[in-house]
Amino acid sequence: MEGPTARQHLLVARVARLATIDPRGKPHLVPVTFAVEGDTIYFAVDAKPKRTTDLQRLRNIAANPSVCVLADHYDEDWTRLWWVRVDGTARILEDAARAGHGLDLLAARYPQYQRARPQGAVVAISIDRISGWASAENPGC
Amino acid sequence: MEGPTARQHLLVARVARLATIDPRGKPHLVPVTFAVEGDTIYFAVDAKPKRTTDLQRLRNIAANPSVCVLADHYDEDWTRLWWVRVDGTARILEDAARAGHGLDLLAARYPQYQRARPQGAVVAISIDRISGWASAENPGC
Repeated sequence: MEGPTARQHLLVARVARLATIDPRGKPHLVPVTFAVEGDTIYFAVDAKPKRTTDLQRLRNIAANPSVCVLADHYDEDWTRLWWVRVDGTARILEDAARAGHGLDLLAARYPQYQRARPQGAVVAISIDRISGWASAENPGC
Repeated sequence: MEGPTARQHLLVARVARLATIDPRGKPHLVPVTFAVEGDTIYFAVDAKPKRTTDLQRLRNIAANPSVCVLADHYDEDWTRLWWVRVDGTARILEDAARAGHGLDLLAARYPQYQRARPQGAVVAISIDRISGWASAENPGC
């Protein structure tokens, strides 16, 4: 899958998985809802963390901004599989206007966020590289 | 979500995402089909890599066995969300009998593998820790 096609798949995916590196050098994963604008992916943290470890992703990013994001489609018909991977550099948006812009993009994409706007941190990921794969028989790719 | 419940969710998930660390210390993600037996997760690599980078996961594991595996459920009804995360230690199975056992488990779980058994490497991940989260309103968790 070439870059433009991979990007198209990323734009329709409703959920992705964020990999960060923890201070011990181990990988950490969480699912994220997200929005894309240009070469930037935005995600936000809800107001009320369910548990302390939910914020591990933010601690990791603050210490090591290298992240990987994956969106994929699973189907029992394996000719329909595809995935898109982004290698990126993340930063927690301190500027209120920039964070608000990210939230606007998220709310435009997810009606759920219009009803309950996230109150936590907003993170911007600069897309350094985008790649992907689709089954050779996949008629939609 | 407590450990036993998280494990139940893992056992029904059809796809997970594998995070490894590359030699530069950056995270790398791919989707994986998998089987679980006891405290071990198995996955395999297909015979014909689509491109060289498909094997990055194996190079990474050989150099750094720390991995993270995530299975999640997305639904537009956000009260139905859940995810399960495994922190683990991976090893590529060199022993043919052990690799064959992993393939048997995979084929038992995925009819697709019965028709085309993977010819590539088989990897076993020892589950060091399992954790998870589900929406507080999720009736199924």
